[in-house]
This record gives sequence, C-alpha cells and structure tokens, in this order.
Amino acid sequence: MSKMYNVAVAGATGAVGLEMLKTLEKRNFPVKSLRLLASARSVGKQLEFKGEKIPVEEMTNDSFKGIDIALFSAGASRSKDFAKACVESGAVMIDNSSAFRMVPDVPLVVPEINPEDAFQHKGIIANPNCTTIIMLVALNPLYKLSPIRRIIVSTYQCSSGAGQKGMNELLTQTADYVNGRPIVPQVFPFQYAFNLFSHNTAIGPNGYNEEEMKMVNETRKIMHDANISVCPTCIRIPTIRSHAEAITIEQERKVSVEEALAALAKAPGVKIVNDAATNHFPMPIESNDQYDVLVGRVRDDLSCPKGLALFVCGDQLLKGAAQNAVQIAEVLASRNA
Amino acid sequence: MSKMYNVAVAGATGAVGLEMLKTLEKRNFPVKSLRLLASARSVGKQLEFKGEKIPVEEMTNDSFKGIDIALFSAGASRSKDFAKACVESGAVMIDNSSAFRMVPDVPLVVPEINPEDAFQHKGIIANPNCTTIIMLVALNPLYKLSPIRRIIVSTYQCSSGAGQKGMNELLTQTADYVNGRPIVPQVFPFQYAFNLFSHNTAIGPNGYNEEEMKMVNETRKIMHDANISVCPTCIRIPTIRSHAEAITIEQERKVSVEEALAALAKAPGVKIVNDAATNHFPMPIESNDQYDVLVGRVRDDLSCPKGLALFVCGDQLLKGAAQNAVQIAEVLASRNA
Repeated sequence: MSKMYNVAVAGATGAVGLEMLKTLEKRNFPVKSLRLLASARSVGKQLEFKGEKIPVEEMTNDSFKGIDIALFSAGASRSKDFAKACVESGAVMIDNSSAFRMVPDVPLVVPEINPEDAFQHKGIIANPNCTTIIMLVALNPLYKLSPIRRIIVSTYQCSSGAGQKGMNELLTQTADYVNGRPIVPQVFPFQYAFNLFSHNTAIGPNGYNEEEMKMVNETRKIMHDANISVCPTCIRIPTIRSHAEAITIEQERKVSVEEALAALAKAPGVKIVNDAATNHFPMPIESNDQYDVLVGRVRDDLSCPKGLALFVCGDQLLKGAAQNAVQIAEVLASRNA
Repeated sequence: MSKMYNVAVAGATGAVGLEMLKTLEKRNFPVKSLRLLASARSVGKQLEFKGEKIPVEEMTNDSFKGIDIALFSAGASRSKDFAKACVESGAVMIDNSSAFRMVPDVPLVVPEINPEDAFQHKGIIANPNCTTIIMLVALNPLYKLSPIRRIIVSTYQCSSGAGQKGMNELLTQTADYVNGRPIVPQVFPFQYAFNLFSHNTAIGPNGYNEEEMKMVNETRKIMHDANISVCPTCIRIPTIRSHAEAITIEQERKVSVEEALAALAKAPGVKIVNDAATNHFPMPIESNDQYDVLVGRVRDDLSCPKGLALFVCGDQLLKGAAQNAVQIAEVLASRNA
C-alpha cells in the first residue's frame, strides 16, 4: 500500500486554504490525517473534508507535531513566524507565500517544469507567484523547443489575488455601482468595479512593482536560466478568480506557430483554446475552477523575426496557488510510494 | 469675424454622435447651423445643442446641401453609401468609421501628430481607430526624441467600442450576474460581466484580428513611417468608456525615463498620471469624460536596452472618436479664420 500522509493546512479558512482542501480531496491525495490551522479568530469553525467535519485549530509552534506535509497559505509574515517550528517538527513546508521564494536553498517549484527541484529541499519548498506559474506552464513547452531570451507580458489580474476579501470587494462595489450607491474602496486602494489599476504593490526604484519583480526573478529561478529577460506590466481588472496574460516571447531560433501548437498540445497542464473561426480563446469564465492553463492566440510576433505571441488564462486560486502546492506534495509522495 | 460653419452630424443619435454634439458645444466650435442625421427610425427624436432642440432627420443623399463639414459616425457601410453625395455637395466628410482609413488619398489624422495631412484631403478625412489614436498621442512625443522601431501593445478595451448597446450590455449583464439571473450575450459573442475576451473582430490568416491590424497599419500611415513594427493584442475587459493600453517600445537610441517624462509633460493632449508613492497611475474612471490621454508607469524596459514601457488610458468616445473628429474640424477651421 502506498504511503499515507499526515497533512496540515495553515491558513485553512482563507480562499486559497479552502481550495487546498478541495484539491486534496478531488485529486485524492493520500491523506492519513488532516489538521486545519488558522488564526485564533477562526477557532470554532469546522470545514468539511471527504464528508467529515474537521475543527479549525489555532496555529501554534506545537501544531506541526506528527505532520508530514504542511501546506501554508497564511501570508508571508505567518510563514516566516512558523517556518522554524514546522521544519524542526519534521514536516515539509510547502509555502504559498512570497516569504522564501528567492532564498537560494529553497526550491521554487512548478511541477510541470522543475519537479526534481522539490527533492533538494531543506524543509521548505516555495510555491511561486500565481501570475508567474500560469505564464510558465504555457511557456515551458516553447522553451524546450528553443530557449526563450525575452518575455514581454501584460497581465489581466483578477480579484482573488487579494483573497476572499478581494473577491467580496469587487462584487460588493459592483452591486453598489449597479444600484447607484456610492463606492467605498476598502481592500484595494481604488475603485475596482468597472475600472482597472496598476497592481497595488510597492513600486521599486526601477519603476516596477513587487508583483512584476516576482515575475522577473521567479521566472529565472524556476527555469534555471539567468539570461531570460522579462518586462512585465501587472494590472488588476474586474474579474473574479482567473488571471489572463498577453505574452510576447523572443527565442534563440524561430519557432513556428505549428511547432508551438504541437508542443503545447502535448504539454502537461495546458489546454489549447484557439478557435479563430469563432473567436474562441482563453477567457476567465472558462478557466475558473479548472486545473489546466488555457492557451490560445498563438501567432507570429509581427515585430520580431524570432518572436511568438500568445494569450493565456489560469485559475489564480488553483494553478496559481492551491493546486500547484498540492501538486508539489504529489511530487514528494511519488518518491515514497 | 471668424468663419462660421454649417455642420452635419451623421449618426447623431449613437454614442459617438452624441459626444460629437457635446464636444462641438464644449469646445465652442464655430457652428452656424447644425443638422442631425440618422436612420429613419430616429426621425421624431430631438437632441439639444446650446440649449436649442434640434430635430433628427433621416440621412439621404440630399442631406448635405449647404453643409461645410459632415462628421460621420454611422458605421462603415453608411459612410461608404453616403460619401459620394456628401463630397459632391461640397462638404468635407470627417469619417469616424474604418471605411476609408487606408485609402491612399484619404488623410488619416490625429491633430496632435499630423494636422498638416488634413489639408491634403479630396473631400474625405478619416478619423483613426480609437485604440490607435490613444496609443499614438502618448507615443508621438517619444518618437520625436528618437524614432520608434517596435511597439508591443496589449489593450484593455472597454464596452463603448460597440456603442451604446455595448455599454448597455455590460451593465445589464452585470446587474443580471449580481442578482443571480442568467446571462444572455446579445451584442458581444461571450459573457462580458466579470470576464474578458479577445477582441470580437475577424481573425485574419496571420492570426491577428481586424482591430489589431488597424493598430499595425494605421500607426504607420499616421506616423509616416513604414518601418514601425507593431505587435498588438486587443482584449475587451469589463470597463465602460475608456481604453487602457500597456505599451513597450524600442527606439533607435535609448531615451531615458526622465527625458521621456519631460517630453510627455509638454505634449499636447497628454496628462501625466505617474505617482509611484501612491500607486496612482492611469485608470479608466479618471479618463472617462476627459479630453487628455493619461500616461504613466513610464519606465525602462527591463528586457531591451533601447526600450521603454508605459501605461496609457483614454476616453474611447472622446479622444478615441468624437473629440478627435471635432479636433480635425478645428484644424480645418484654423486655416479659414
């Protein structure tokens, strides 16, 4: 019989935490026991897993005793606070926050791309930034055809990047707008309903915000290629839980559209949605709740002889977060079968 | 006393037509008489101009007698149907449709960029595509610093590109979504509320849709530079009446961010919105109903030594359509003062 795992989910009541539970169940991860951890104010709640109600416990340094795998999505500061206790208890921490992603001995893993890196962990494995994961699942099959030297990407990011409260804010503001009530931004700095704004993370001295610099730096680490240049523009638009991205790449040699589509058709985690006759291409409403990254609009870059352009869409809470974390756990489990 | 003009607005009851009226009034264009033309089903309506109610007349070949300037926004097929009658009557046709834009002897004019072209007309002057106008108002001051060789642009296009019915569809669908009613797309091919989709114009053999090819071809014509390469991705997002665009350019020489901002600060039709400290950059809600194109996020392209990136936002109905057409009329009037 395959090994079974004692699993903890830290931040279990958040939007990503809830999707981690669902994904563990739907993908039938070999869970022996499940511990749900959150802040003190969630104690008393119960969440369902495989038909069983499980109480939410307050996360403390003692929470990780006997745990094999701890999936963290409780924010970067809580990941930092509890990493030591988690790792010292012998659990592998799979962390969805940005806390450890760029730490040299922490693997940063997208299972479709660099699963082997997971086994280099020293207790912590980082789940990459959502926008970066979704982009690279689509680009990795093209990179294998010819190394990518340059990526220009514009994002169309949804509300769930700010969790359940982000999704609620968009829906509340929209209802207010439709009903003629005043709009009062609370989670995001600007009106979100029927608007867009530059991603609300701090802008650094080079003019790029933190979200954009994650795409720049994490891409190089995941792809093991320090020579990939990335120029991102990260924008929030009023969609709910799927990110979209318009991507233009330049490769070492010219890859044809046909070659690219053939590689994408065989690629794990990719679903091609590319029907020019009906203008049917990747859309958030079709990638919501889906495991695959939708890829379409694959065409020659009219401005670069070695360029390709494409458009992708992926569920921010799933492939961008919970699902990728569970897939990392599956990678670990695959060696302990 | 300056010359006064007999003006006709063809398509007066449409979203752009109504903005043409408002813009003629607000900018105090020297109107001697105003004739409002539309299809037969609008006859009986009255529209207000400078406090006076003007009846809507059915557009016929006789509508242009005595007219000096006819502002057309009634769709490409009606522009084609009535161009001959309009021009033969001695009126100058300023056409907002795509009908004549790429006809060699029809000037394609953005008054901030190529006003002189307007005087080369043989009866028809074309108003460029909305997305192209908004992009080029921001890029022209940079082009003057050093020729632009390559443009990669991703658009965030609003509902008003499909007129009042497009705006209505977005608002209706959104109200339906918020109230739990089923969504039935009628104007656009896909759900629009909380979604995005690739621009709903036909995809050509090269994989680009008609909207994108307008950006490619019209850019070269307006800038008088056949060597500008453009790689556009045109996407509709759920905003109401302003387009936004993430633009990356490559120039002949490296232009610094400071130099670019200094040129933009002096450029006509441009308003810089670029406050990194508060993450305040161009947003649709701030460009709605504004004449200027908002420009921000001006920064070095991390992936190209001669590159710059920027983010722009402009009112699709105004600078993207009605206002640009009225500005062309102002250019003509400036020589007849």
